[in-house]
Amino acid sequence: MFFASDNAAPCPPEVMAALSAVNQGFAMPYGNDAHTARAVDVIRTLFEAPEAAVYFVSTGTVANCLSLATVSPLWGAVFCHTNAHVQEDECGAPEVFTGGKLLLVPGAHGRMEPAALDKAIRAQKPGVVHSVQPGAVTLTNITEGGTLYSVAETRAIADVAKAHGLPLHLDGARFANAVAASGATPAELTWKAGVDIVSFGGTKGGLMGAEAVIFFNPEKAFEFELRRKRSGHLFSKTRYLAAQFEGWIEGGRWLDHARHANAMAARLAEGLAKIEGVTVAPEAAANILFVKLPAATVGRLREAGAVFYLRGDDYARLVTSWATTEEDCDRFIALASE
Amino acid sequence: MFFASDNAAPCPPEVMAALSAVNQGFAMPYGNDAHTARAVDVIRTLFEAPEAAVYFVSTGTVANCLSLATVSPLWGAVFCHTNAHVQEDECGAPEVFTGGKLLLVPGAHGRMEPAALDKAIRAQKPGVVHSVQPGAVTLTNITEGGTLYSVAETRAIADVAKAHGLPLHLDGARFANAVAASGATPAELTWKAGVDIVSFGGTKGGLMGAEAVIFFNPEKAFEFELRRKRSGHLFSKTRYLAAQFEGWIEGGRWLDHARHANAMAARLAEGLAKIEGVTVAPEAAANILFVKLPAATVGRLREAGAVFYLRGDDYARLVTSWATTEEDCDRFIALASE
Amino acid sequence: MFFASDNAAPCPPEVMAALSAVNQGFAMPYGNDAHTARAVDVIRTLFEAPEAAVYFVSTGTVANCLSLATVSPLWGAVFCHTNAHVQEDECGAPEVFTGGKLLLVPGAHGRMEPAALDKAIRAQKPGVVHSVQPGAVTLTNITEGGTLYSVAETRAIADVAKAHGLPLHLDGARFANAVAASGATPAELTWKAGVDIVSFGGTKGGLMGAEAVIFFNPEKAFEFELRRKRSGHLFSKTRYLAAQFEGWIEGGRWLDHARHANAMAARLAEGLAKIEGVTVAPEAAANILFVKLPAATVGRLREAGAVFYLRGDDYARLVTSWATTEEDCDRFIALASE
Amino acid sequence: MFFASDNAAPCPPEVMAALSAVNQGFAMPYGNDAHTARAVDVIRTLFEAPEAAVYFVSTGTVANCLSLATVSPLWGAVFCHTNAHVQEDECGAPEVFTGGKLLLVPGAHGRMEPAALDKAIRAQKPGVVHSVQPGAVTLTNITEGGTLYSVAETRAIADVAKAHGLPLHLDGARFANAVAASGATPAELTWKAGVDIVSFGGTKGGLMGAEAVIFFNPEKAFEFELRRKRSGHLFSKTRYLAAQFEGWIEGGRWLDHARHANAMAARLAEGLAKIEGVTVAPEAAANILFVKLPAATVGRLREAGAVFYLRGDDYARLVTSWATTEEDCDRFIALASE
Repeated sequence: MFFASDNAAPCPPEVMAALSAVNQGFAMPYGNDAHTARAVDVIRTLFEAPEAAVYFVSTGTVANCLSLATVSPLWGAVFCHTNAHVQEDECGAPEVFTGGKLLLVPGAHGRMEPAALDKAIRAQKPGVVHSVQPGAVTLTNITEGGTLYSVAETRAIADVAKAHGLPLHLDGARFANAVAASGATPAELTWKAGVDIVSFGGTKGGLMGAEAVIFFNPEKAFEFELRRKRSGHLFSKTRYLAAQFEGWIEGGRWLDHARHANAMAARLAEGLAKIEGVTVAPEAAANILFVKLPAATVGRLREAGAVFYLRGDDYARLVTSWATTEEDCDRFIALASE
Repeated sequence: MFFASDNAAPCPPEVMAALSAVNQGFAMPYGNDAHTARAVDVIRTLFEAPEAAVYFVSTGTVANCLSLATVSPLWGAVFCHTNAHVQEDECGAPEVFTGGKLLLVPGAHGRMEPAALDKAIRAQKPGVVHSVQPGAVTLTNITEGGTLYSVAETRAIADVAKAHGLPLHLDGARFANAVAASGATPAELTWKAGVDIVSFGGTKGGLMGAEAVIFFNPEKAFEFELRRKRSGHLFSKTRYLAAQFEGWIEGGRWLDHARHANAMAARLAEGLAKIEGVTVAPEAAANILFVKLPAATVGRLREAGAVFYLRGDDYARLVTSWATTEEDCDRFIALASE
Repeated sequence: MFFASDNAAPCPPEVMAALSAVNQGFAMPYGNDAHTARAVDVIRTLFEAPEAAVYFVSTGTVANCLSLATVSPLWGAVFCHTNAHVQEDECGAPEVFTGGKLLLVPGAHGRMEPAALDKAIRAQKPGVVHSVQPGAVTLTNITEGGTLYSVAETRAIADVAKAHGLPLHLDGARFANAVAASGATPAELTWKAGVDIVSFGGTKGGLMGAEAVIFFNPEKAFEFELRRKRSGHLFSKTRYLAAQFEGWIEGGRWLDHARHANAMAARLAEGLAKIEGVTVAPEAAANILFVKLPAATVGRLREAGAVFYLRGDDYARLVTSWATTEEDCDRFIALASE
Repeated sequence: MFFASDNAAPCPPEVMAALSAVNQGFAMPYGNDAHTARAVDVIRTLFEAPEAAVYFVSTGTVANCLSLATVSPLWGAVFCHTNAHVQEDECGAPEVFTGGKLLLVPGAHGRMEPAALDKAIRAQKPGVVHSVQPGAVTLTNITEGGTLYSVAETRAIADVAKAHGLPLHLDGARFANAVAASGATPAELTWKAGVDIVSFGGTKGGLMGAEAVIFFNPEKAFEFELRRKRSGHLFSKTRYLAAQFEGWIEGGRWLDHARHANAMAARLAEGLAKIEGVTVAPEAAANILFVKLPAATVGRLREAGAVFYLRGDDYARLVTSWATTEEDCDRFIALASE
């Protein structure tokens, strides 16, 4: 009954198999090998983006920070949701990498309101040296609030960004869950909706520690490579990052895993909602659930070995993953029902 | 016949096995899991340093840069060899991470001369704001020149650093080869000789992409953790970095691999030295060899599929690894003899 | 009728005289001269702080940024008001200098609410690497909203900061006006109320471009000096910064000027408040006034040569200075009354 | 007998007069005033560069650092002489501002050898992420060694820079002395010889603390303005920086002062060269002189009140300024002759 985070799950078999498969002989380092080239192609195909520049890095924080630093100037404002991961959980790394400043855009349940974004951008004055200059917009899908930006909602944000000439980045730490939840294709949920750069998360979906950064416009690709190197994020044995993605995507396993995780959250939601005294926040769209539980229930669950985080005393965040079982969900529900 | 670098080799079986072994169930993220704790203990035991703070990161560049940034102030000078990896191959990352400046110390074949180090430190003026302040010393063992700092030579550098109150860092990207070449223990070649922080390289010795940073004095451990996080280098699934080290060290395989690599280089050296027109630089102590080859020989070798870097037209750098075979060495020698 | 800002006024005669007075012969550079030592003493005496470290710099932005960078760690959160100068008007410089992050504290009319500050600090988790760590608190007095923190209000903020072990910085770009408005002494309004570091503004009070940074605890003085140097802010001919302060403070002229500026604002407020259709924001405590004016009045005033900034179409910010005359105020009032 | 540095001299009367002249009434801040516009024009005219972007800052360090940061990328190598001010006397500021790395070019007496510069640039590999990328070249004229780059020598350096597509910056802290020594015009010694950006020093030539940065190609002017602001170097009362330049340049006083300073150094050189046991380095071209003096002579001079720096025990650096008198020179010579 582990619901603390999807980053605590092990790796699915196809990922381990892919690692073994590339563990043969010598391979040129720093991405100049056939395995890496193949994985890049797999991702280009998945996103229907044959020209995209694709890079593998090892953490979500650096995927976000390098992406933003590449497209926003040193004096740039990066507009993000008030509770975005870049704002709350990256220890100031976005400011360090970009040189600029995060400016916060409100919105319910982790989603920026397009009108609020427009207002925030307008408040900065391009051409006036006293304030940072509009630099980029970043949205998270699935959001920290467990909600989804649909294709239309993504497009609405992109329209505001484009109206101000700003690039749009997507923090897709849980992009697989967003694709599964939306029913859209990766392309529809990104470049077709106006997204320019994606941090395509693998770790929370089952990889050991691998994220792909995708620039649909490869113009600044070499700048990204220099930034990756000088932040210590260029792997020599890139094949082992690339292989994880290849194994995970081939055959559509990445999406199967995400669908499973989302289904487990739905199962939890459905079961918990029936319990008196328990309130399930209705906005959950994917694999993150917020549930108000009586204090006694919290205690009982934890005693029984359930692992999850609380906000305050009684507001539980439950996160499911590819490795969550129906049995765990049902047991959790049963314990909460007692 | 792959002699371009030891970072192009695959991973030995025990590393793959260790990854499989930890790929079970959920584990708390960010290093708070039993696997990581166990690997930390393995390294503490190996270095006879039960109090040491030990961290796992994924690249040698970041191991060096985070180490130096933690112990040298923003305005600090880091003294290194003229051709050190931090100076020549990290794209300015040490300056970015530390905030300071590298100052170069000459010395033959990649080894700093203690007297030259002393002179360089004295040239900076502590307490005078116009110049950077002495911050730290870093040496590389095995050096970029393929040479070894013996225990005594390490101690000589440490004595100079200590006389000026400076911490001593060791870039140990090929520390395994240094231990193998010196016959000393890890402790003797580090803290017993005055080294304060080690970048203990795993990648070049056979890991997928894993380095350990060891602070023998754990005083600044939390600062290191914050710096690791804000540079995007904190893995959530730390167990997969830790396991690589555990599998590699348990049973002494790490040292067996290094001894093998060193032996392959010695085999090459011995065979090549006998060939007329070929000159083997005599300083090689481990798994890096510099060899002057006739241009025709270079062409013949490359045609036959040998992979190696040249400096100028005829000065080859040959690097062996755990995966280098006797057959490859002998074939290379045979081709060079034709 | 120049009410755009107090930084557009010329220098009063005693400042020019002081510059002439020190313009004699050679003087050791970089602050090692008798003139600078004397001005340091003048400020120590003014603040009843004989042990304070006092430095002269040329802009308010750098006074704030160097102060905060010296006391808040690289990963530090600096808590400031939502509309503080450091947040809105320094183009991201505080993040660049400190390495950290500004976190915003609400409060009416430019003043942080102590309870809101406490809540904001508590929201950061010391010891958790995912978020920036509480680093420092900065308040502005006179605030950007034209309001005053009284001694008691300053103390209330300081109490919160101290409860969390955080240093308290005062952005005193208009500190002279605050002293004049409060009736307190400089010591009462700073260290006696719990302030640790002051950016003591001279420029807006009549100097050419000179600010003093005061550390009541001189422990980190040398760090400040290094930071000043490496940001290009160490003047060689420091005597010319120091002399401005000396001339301005000796004889109490600095406070006379501030009292005059405050009186001019009060005169404006009184006159404008009587006009139908004009609303004077009642919180103004010193030399900044916010006034709602009919659009026609704005047009008439500007046509007649009045210079001032608008927020929106009709909300004027009027700033008075030592050089503002009664005539200008009365003429402005008369024009607004037509 | 003050020969420690030209930055210890007072300001000449025309500078004080110019300050008084602009100290009238209100003036729009941040450079948007008529005084500043006028001084910009004066400098454009002086350099025969009507399109140049001209900015006023307060220290030489920041003039250099902002110039280089504007034209060299974050991952750029800035090539400079081994003993350049940016390398030895700016506490690492150039690395902080540019984000890059200084790479050192040897050459006798402070002048880079063109061939050595070419070699240093070639050693960096454009397009290879492991090393910093060629970013800019900076030369100093008058050099730290007291020597001059003639127009032809400047052109030789520029030719190398241009061949590699690199911008050329001139650290002209003593540019006035270089113009005086060379007999060339400012234009001939800068853009006509291939210089792209100049730090035109005023402070060492008699100003209180004012330097002008000149971009002959104004393309990156706004970037410079943003960098100036976010490093805390944008003055509100810019008129007082601008006026100093205007007063100093109008009527050619700046050059008269430089000629005087150079003549005083020549007078010293001539007198000292005649003394037995004293050796005057023959390369001196302007207002810096290196003189080997017997230890007893050093002691006698200092006892008599002469102020100068020594390198080692007996190698004196003597710097003259606009304020150095013939009497001081002759007295120094006389004391050295005893």
